[in-house]
Amino acid sequence: MASTFGHLFRITTWGESHGGGVGVVVDGCPPKLKLTEADIQPELNRRRPGQSKITTRRMEPDTVQILSGTFEGKTLGTPICMWVKNEDARPEAYSEMKEKFRPSHADFTYFAKYGIRNWQGGGRASARETIGRVAAGAIAKKILREKFGVETLAYVKQVQRISGAIDPNKVTLKEVESNIVRCPDQKAAKEMIELIDDIRQQGDTVGGIIEGIARGVPVGWGEPVFDKLGADLAKAMMSLPATKAFEIGSGFNSILMTGREHNDAFRAKNKKVFTKTNFSGGIQGGISNGETIFFRVAFKPVATVMHEQDTVDVRYENTKLKARGRHDPCVLPRAVPMIEAMTALVLVDHALRHKAQCG
Amino acid sequence: MASTFGHLFRITTWGESHGGGVGVVVDGCPPKLKLTEADIQPELNRRRPGQSKITTRRMEPDTVQILSGTFEGKTLGTPICMWVKNEDARPEAYSEMKEKFRPSHADFTYFAKYGIRNWQGGGRASARETIGRVAAGAIAKKILREKFGVETLAYVKQVQRISGAIDPNKVTLKEVESNIVRCPDQKAAKEMIELIDDIRQQGDTVGGIIEGIARGVPVGWGEPVFDKLGADLAKAMMSLPATKAFEIGSGFNSILMTGREHNDAFRAKNKKVFTKTNFSGGIQGGISNGETIFFRVAFKPVATVMHEQDTVDVRYENTKLKARGRHDPCVLPRAVPMIEAMTALVLVDHALRHKAQCG
Amino acid sequence: MASTFGHLFRITTWGESHGGGVGVVVDGCPPKLKLTEADIQPELNRRRPGQSKITTRRMEPDTVQILSGTFEGKTLGTPICMWVKNEDARPEAYSEMKEKFRPSHADFTYFAKYGIRNWQGGGRASARETIGRVAAGAIAKKILREKFGVETLAYVKQVQRISGAIDPNKVTLKEVESNIVRCPDQKAAKEMIELIDDIRQQGDTVGGIIEGIARGVPVGWGEPVFDKLGADLAKAMMSLPATKAFEIGSGFNSILMTGREHNDAFRAKNKKVFTKTNFSGGIQGGISNGETIFFRVAFKPVATVMHEQDTVDVRYENTKLKARGRHDPCVLPRAVPMIEAMTALVLVDHALRHKAQCG
Amino acid sequence: MASTFGHLFRITTWGESHGGGVGVVVDGCPPKLKLTEADIQPELNRRRPGQSKITTRRMEPDTVQILSGTFEGKTLGTPICMWVKNEDARPEAYSEMKEKFRPSHADFTYFAKYGIRNWQGGGRASARETIGRVAAGAIAKKILREKFGVETLAYVKQVQRISGAIDPNKVTLKEVESNIVRCPDQKAAKEMIELIDDIRQQGDTVGGIIEGIARGVPVGWGEPVFDKLGADLAKAMMSLPATKAFEIGSGFNSILMTGREHNDAFRAKNKKVFTKTNFSGGIQGGISNGETIFFRVAFKPVATVMHEQDTVDVRYENTKLKARGRHDPCVLPRAVPMIEAMTALVLVDHALRHKAQCG
Repeated sequence: MASTFGHLFRITTWGESHGGGVGVVVDGCPPKLKLTEADIQPELNRRRPGQSKITTRRMEPDTVQILSGTFEGKTLGTPICMWVKNEDARPEAYSEMKEKFRPSHADFTYFAKYGIRNWQGGGRASARETIGRVAAGAIAKKILREKFGVETLAYVKQVQRISGAIDPNKVTLKEVESNIVRCPDQKAAKEMIELIDDIRQQGDTVGGIIEGIARGVPVGWGEPVFDKLGADLAKAMMSLPATKAFEIGSGFNSILMTGREHNDAFRAKNKKVFTKTNFSGGIQGGISNGETIFFRVAFKPVATVMHEQDTVDVRYENTKLKARGRHDPCVLPRAVPMIEAMTALVLVDHALRHKAQCG
Repeated sequence: MASTFGHLFRITTWGESHGGGVGVVVDGCPPKLKLTEADIQPELNRRRPGQSKITTRRMEPDTVQILSGTFEGKTLGTPICMWVKNEDARPEAYSEMKEKFRPSHADFTYFAKYGIRNWQGGGRASARETIGRVAAGAIAKKILREKFGVETLAYVKQVQRISGAIDPNKVTLKEVESNIVRCPDQKAAKEMIELIDDIRQQGDTVGGIIEGIARGVPVGWGEPVFDKLGADLAKAMMSLPATKAFEIGSGFNSILMTGREHNDAFRAKNKKVFTKTNFSGGIQGGISNGETIFFRVAFKPVATVMHEQDTVDVRYENTKLKARGRHDPCVLPRAVPMIEAMTALVLVDHALRHKAQCG
Repeated sequence: MASTFGHLFRITTWGESHGGGVGVVVDGCPPKLKLTEADIQPELNRRRPGQSKITTRRMEPDTVQILSGTFEGKTLGTPICMWVKNEDARPEAYSEMKEKFRPSHADFTYFAKYGIRNWQGGGRASARETIGRVAAGAIAKKILREKFGVETLAYVKQVQRISGAIDPNKVTLKEVESNIVRCPDQKAAKEMIELIDDIRQQGDTVGGIIEGIARGVPVGWGEPVFDKLGADLAKAMMSLPATKAFEIGSGFNSILMTGREHNDAFRAKNKKVFTKTNFSGGIQGGISNGETIFFRVAFKPVATVMHEQDTVDVRYENTKLKARGRHDPCVLPRAVPMIEAMTALVLVDHALRHKAQCG
Repeated sequence: MASTFGHLFRITTWGESHGGGVGVVVDGCPPKLKLTEADIQPELNRRRPGQSKITTRRMEPDTVQILSGTFEGKTLGTPICMWVKNEDARPEAYSEMKEKFRPSHADFTYFAKYGIRNWQGGGRASARETIGRVAAGAIAKKILREKFGVETLAYVKQVQRISGAIDPNKVTLKEVESNIVRCPDQKAAKEMIELIDDIRQQGDTVGGIIEGIARGVPVGWGEPVFDKLGADLAKAMMSLPATKAFEIGSGFNSILMTGREHNDAFRAKNKKVFTKTNFSGGIQGGISNGETIFFRVAFKPVATVMHEQDTVDVRYENTKLKARGRHDPCVLPRAVPMIEAMTALVLVDHALRHKAQCG
């Protein structure tokens, strides 16, 4: 079950960074949805390496094939299997990893857990695993848009200390895509790009914050108790590689306010309820309240740096390791479509669950 | 499935704050574990209201009964059902809520989702639901302690702007329990208590941060991809009422470091691997690495305040509402055992999953 | 998960035959369904011992209490916990079982699996466990009836070699309940009752076949591949104590026909499709086709007989055992409501699943 | 979840009979198991069409590729995706099916459920879907054999009225594979082959019974209540296309015996418990008792016959349909590896579950 996510709209990803490829099986998709590779590929293009000077220069086309679940351009209601071949293998770049564990990667824990690992890359811990998520997320986003009028979006909010000012209620996809760092605040974006490029030249890396939003979610999605909408979003986000923190609505800052200040007063107009503020982040008691859902996810700086580091080898003896070749100074721009995908997967699943019990 | 948590050590909570009671069914518990109500009650006592001047004065004994799953003081390997009767009903305290939604509570979203709600209290969104979690968590903690040598612990780290200095590697349960706010830093604790008492007298409320830890977790628990240990902890914590944020290890602060600074260098001694720093928070690639696991959870200020607030009624018209009776100025001291319980539930489930596949 | 059944309408039973009681938690029930104990108790009365001279004379009122999930006589959409106290304990009747395993019971396998067992009765293997199923099934039947116009019914089809002639398309509940053996063929029923009474006086037991039916199921319930409607019914039935076989539609007799003889020709009238014959038993490719669903379940003769038998003790040494007190000569009349309950649970779950994906 | 089977050893099949191919993702496989395509292909060869004169002459090589989850010939503990391309498409053979539903196939129910279907073959209801099951089953069988010393086997027990005499405790794979009908009773096999060949020439089809067995299963696998070993086997078998009935141990014949006759007396020798008879079929109270597990599955005659039949078209109007080209007179020989696969999948899953809770 480790590789399966969701209850009614359920995805199972498979594949290592090196081997036959990576992919995903999507089970539970409603039938008769128009769907071809052309709906999926643009999201994979946003995710793939080699898009700009501030991401890794590893080049992979990441071309998706739909192997099942559609007929004459429409979904059948049966499992949709999507596959992306691995192309840019270069095992020689990883030869030293056969013997040594990269610090703050999953090399050691995988080896200790399973007694075996595919040392030619990060295996399942590689960012390549997210290809399946983004491909499945493209379907989820399409369902949300076409069947429920819900828009999911994400953007880079902060890189190290450089923070952008963005209004979650108004920001557009076009603004997000208007620069290579995917920060809709153009001034902050420029500074972020300069910082990342500078860090890249130092062979170092930098982290930051992505903000994810969902607009148009109707009142009532989400479940009480364990499968709260916020809890499922937290799990979805914290399951992405390199994430360290999640906050929703007022998040950590909520603790600086008192209850009187923090409560979102209800108001009604023409029998429609809304809140005057939105510290709740669109979710109350685990259930959407109709306001914009927004949350933030922190990504640590990428662990692969171009400097020699202390580590241990597979015999559990001390040694040193220096990465070679290309590195990714900042994962944030490529992580934006991942956040959108995971958001959409959580929401579609809850939309179907709500329909089943209360529809 | 909304009320079920876990895969192999699986709990299902049930019950509203008002009605026949609240409880939990624990399925998948190993057999032959010594277990009586005396193992459960102390944790419920830590969780219950009325413990001190800084928690709600609602008084409930919260006496637990084990209805099934044990025989002659030992677990049978069959489902353990535990039940706590509701005693302190006082429906009159809630009469106004029949017509009005409390701001930043789940009253409105439940009503909109289900078209019905038990207005005599918070229903499933009430903190009383966590009784089942804490009771199940007491079993999980016992299994971790006796079968795996793992200790789970939590404490109040911060109340509003008052932060304690606590070493996750050394803090003890005795220190946590040494004061009514459950902050092991005595100086900070004193300030916290004063602040909460002051806030209470103002009829207002205050939030803060609880830090949760697990010590002695062996290398290898947790799953790659979706069921990462950190992801499951995030979901567990964000499923608790009033939580707004979760961070593990370096958390949000990780973004202020570069990759070189943030990486946890591996070292080995006598064929045992450890890390020089622990920014990873004991988890790498979703799998425990043998270091102390630690994370922080933010709780917003409690929504029930003793002041009139704007809200809407069940006819979706504007009105005002003022809570009556007793309120809880700060949920943090009572939330400490909840954090411990959820931590233990996640860990036991992963311990069993690890044994199944790799044991 | 062993004690949980269903995906969207999900039940978890708990409790041993001896101890605090038995019960069930029903999660996923739609909200606003009228529901009180009066909807549940009649089904438990049909299931309980002591109804007539041909069932066990063990007397238990089996009074159900709803502990959660309803408010003012309606479901809240939250987990419904129902509880029946154990009354007729008589541990002295079981004292010999502390040391010896009853043949063809679960005493030995439970002991070997868990290393412990509640020897005061059958524990979870006791027919008392089915109280939770029947209680949950009463809710499922009500939903099917009121929301989908579906009727579920079962009756005794055969006792040993005595077989009744019953038309699944026409039989009524009133006919089923018209005699103590629950066989709507009055002539066969008379013979069955005589046979069972005779067997009872010999201290022996007898098995037979129950036929279960569902009428009014719309086209489209059920899933391709693993969760076929027939597969889920098979599992549901074979999870009942003492069941040995399951067949749907033409069942084992299908092998005596050729394909030309066995195929159910489609016909249409006023744009409504039906089949000329119904060898398929109302299910094709795992999905309901609108015809009456019918299947048969074989129950072995009850294992508790009033004669000395060879067996082994807890030290794995040969010994002999003779049951004392009351025995149940034939479980079939009491198993009828169990079959109806399991049928209804499978159908409601699939109704909700169908609504989620295709509604 | 419709396409997922198992809890800890979990498979998800995907693919239609026509389209990019069919396959399976296996999640939860233990690491470090030696595994290459050479372990899988022989089972697929037993399952594929075109093996002999008594199966369909459709020719497909069904060559399997492992796309993920292994490294240097060993499993990684991560999801194993296996893929078989579709080769023998011949859409022209299906052109009439675009408009008409084949009787006793899933064409009508799929269309009614989803509003769309891949009419170029049976879609997910095709026997091709079982390729993924057989491929996954090959891994399960290997684990059972190498890690638990358990052997799973199946054979044709009966074709129409011709029944073989086979001892489940002694029959070998070599005997099963010694003739094209896979019935180890050579005399019966000869008659079965003649019957099937005769039926084939008439353009008709015939059904029968496969017996499945598992030898060497230790005491203690299986769960009380819902996930009884027999219940999970029933579901597994009844999820295969064309199955109509399932019985375990004494099955339907159990009803002809009294309790005294039917009970399996326990005996012990050298502290090892066994039963004098095995009417229980190796399972008591849902849990294996150490005896040989055996059960029978009835397959109806294949629905595709070479004769004109009454049916309806997609406009729900009456019409006639006659299949063209090649047909499969009897699915039984090819279904033998399917039964073995499903048996092995159920057993491995329960082996891991048992280890998790009681290991």
